[in-house]
Amino acid sequence: MKLFTTAGLAGVSASIFLLLSNSSIAQTRPLNLKVTSLSDKVLNGPITIEKQGSFFVGGRDIESSTLSTLPAYAQSGTITVDQMYVRYQAPVKAKNTAIVMIHGCCLTGKTWESTPDGRMGWDEYFVKRGYPTYVIDQSGRGRSAVNATAMNAAKMGKEAPEKLPVVFAASHESAWTIFRFGSEYPKVYEGQKFPIAAQNGLWQQMVSDWLFSMPTPNPTVPNLSLLSKQLKKTILMSHSQSGIYPFQTAQLSNEGIAGIIAVEPSACPAADGDLSAYTKMPIMILYGDYMEISPRWAPRLKACRAFTEKANQAGGKVELLLLPEAGINGNSHMIMQDSNSIQIADILGSWIEQRIKN
Amino acid sequence: MKLFTTAGLAGVSASIFLLLSNSSIAQTRPLNLKVTSLSDKVLNGPITIEKQGSFFVGGRDIESSTLSTLPAYAQSGTITVDQMYVRYQAPVKAKNTAIVMIHGCCLTGKTWESTPDGRMGWDEYFVKRGYPTYVIDQSGRGRSAVNATAMNAAKMGKEAPEKLPVVFAASHESAWTIFRFGSEYPKVYEGQKFPIAAQNGLWQQMVSDWLFSMPTPNPTVPNLSLLSKQLKKTILMSHSQSGIYPFQTAQLSNEGIAGIIAVEPSACPAADGDLSAYTKMPIMILYGDYMEISPRWAPRLKACRAFTEKANQAGGKVELLLLPEAGINGNSHMIMQDSNSIQIADILGSWIEQRIKN
Repeated sequence: MKLFTTAGLAGVSASIFLLLSNSSIAQTRPLNLKVTSLSDKVLNGPITIEKQGSFFVGGRDIESSTLSTLPAYAQSGTITVDQMYVRYQAPVKAKNTAIVMIHGCCLTGKTWESTPDGRMGWDEYFVKRGYPTYVIDQSGRGRSAVNATAMNAAKMGKEAPEKLPVVFAASHESAWTIFRFGSEYPKVYEGQKFPIAAQNGLWQQMVSDWLFSMPTPNPTVPNLSLLSKQLKKTILMSHSQSGIYPFQTAQLSNEGIAGIIAVEPSACPAADGDLSAYTKMPIMILYGDYMEISPRWAPRLKACRAFTEKANQAGGKVELLLLPEAGINGNSHMIMQDSNSIQIADILGSWIEQRIKN
Repeated sequence: MKLFTTAGLAGVSASIFLLLSNSSIAQTRPLNLKVTSLSDKVLNGPITIEKQGSFFVGGRDIESSTLSTLPAYAQSGTITVDQMYVRYQAPVKAKNTAIVMIHGCCLTGKTWESTPDGRMGWDEYFVKRGYPTYVIDQSGRGRSAVNATAMNAAKMGKEAPEKLPVVFAASHESAWTIFRFGSEYPKVYEGQKFPIAAQNGLWQQMVSDWLFSMPTPNPTVPNLSLLSKQLKKTILMSHSQSGIYPFQTAQLSNEGIAGIIAVEPSACPAADGDLSAYTKMPIMILYGDYMEISPRWAPRLKACRAFTEKANQAGGKVELLLLPEAGINGNSHMIMQDSNSIQIADILGSWIEQRIKN
């Protein structure tokens, strides 16, 4: 079994160069990258895992007198909140650099697992590429507990209902536009690469989001910092709403952070702020298609381009890849679930190999 | 790589017979089982996965006008609720029988993953033993979305706060007694096998529980039925609060259910009810230690013994294993996380091999 040796990876099924030189963004560096793919045997064959499991990072104990309105469960006592769930897999002969995958709004770590139409997820792809891979549920999401005591306080009449936590669910109709499947539900952009026929598999992934009821700073950020220190050398790979978290984590401390990959970040650091924390590591900002025609996303792209320019002027190594500029069209906001998700993973895997010393 | 062949399993590190003949429970059959363990190489070595991923079962679309109290997210629209998250791993040369693992109260599928002190979870053990293994989050728990629209209805003043969903969190102190770590927090029963020093790793797993706000029947049950039919041949392995679910699933349909393993069920079917659905498959009911001294658990054990007797009188194949009666002492309610969790998994793995035709 030599699935993960360099020799195995050298058996590439495709090798392309991505060279960008869009004059309108001359301030961002051209992406000079030799893209290598996994061999069919590695991609489609079995995977050998050296070690796997799950654990939590962080959390704090709180006392509450509104734990329950049921006689069978005590009203008062101690619970743990703000911890962050982490599931990991490490291949045999793993590389030294880990990858931490951080999902976005209204979703959980499921984002990175197998796609709505049943293809391999990036969580598995990057293990096959040799990287120990850590998939988290943000604090207060999925398997990371929310603090629901305020609900019972309102139910018991101890707090006014207006004080209830802010919790929202994104509808299919609004997610449709936010995820750039089309201009409005149920219209589909021409060339769309999200597997629209399997959309139900995405709706099933969506969860209510307690983001705006979380403490400040969001505990996910210090928890990512703890995790990075524990891993010693990791790439923080974010998506969408979590896009700013790796940057905020790097501001807390660079320790353990070897690089940042921001997949479709909803925000980059302010271009006119202190950028010193972001000049110490390679950074990749990746966006799909239909950006300029989206009133929600066009300004975000513009702001991330401004950040890229300023960070590089300050000595940074930031690259912004807008996929259509590399001739890759049709990607939605859910790039890791799009029909060409493995092609994009090849680009990111190659970027890591060529930008970050293992 | 022949990790999962019969030859590999034959390299056992221990082989004991469990023979029970407690005259006080003569109505339950003596457990005649040859217990085989995984070899050290298989247990501690890497694992080769043929296929892994995750998906959802079930769910329904609802319209709501209280999705959000934030301007950025639409108040009205469609969301999907009641679906059930499933993560799976299948080894190479997998057996034909799958195992579905169903967590209990206030917990998620994390229950079955690596233990609070970092040892291998049963999710991985049973894959190493050759079984395709499916770990679920119950509908409305963990990565399976809750329907939080009633919270916003109360927050907006559209519903009275008394109508808020019933949601409870089990405190460390109450869980301590329920999980039989000791008679009361923080006393520890003599010989306790739960890794008490790592208790924080259990508190981090606990989540708020919406069980009593779920529709009737709990969607987890029809979802388990759908999953069983899809898998064609599976064992439903429950824990604690979910103990009754495999039985309720079998009542809906036997299709796809090859057997039931109830780990520390909080309830068995009523002994005086119609037991015909439970006579068609081997059933194992497993309990740990300190049962008779627990006011909560002693009556549950008694009721499950009565069920066992009546089901067997009706032609069933139900076995009830109280571990101390097999000379295994010190197990808490969280058997899959206790220090001897692999020893107990060996018993269950052997039981499956000897009772259920592959």
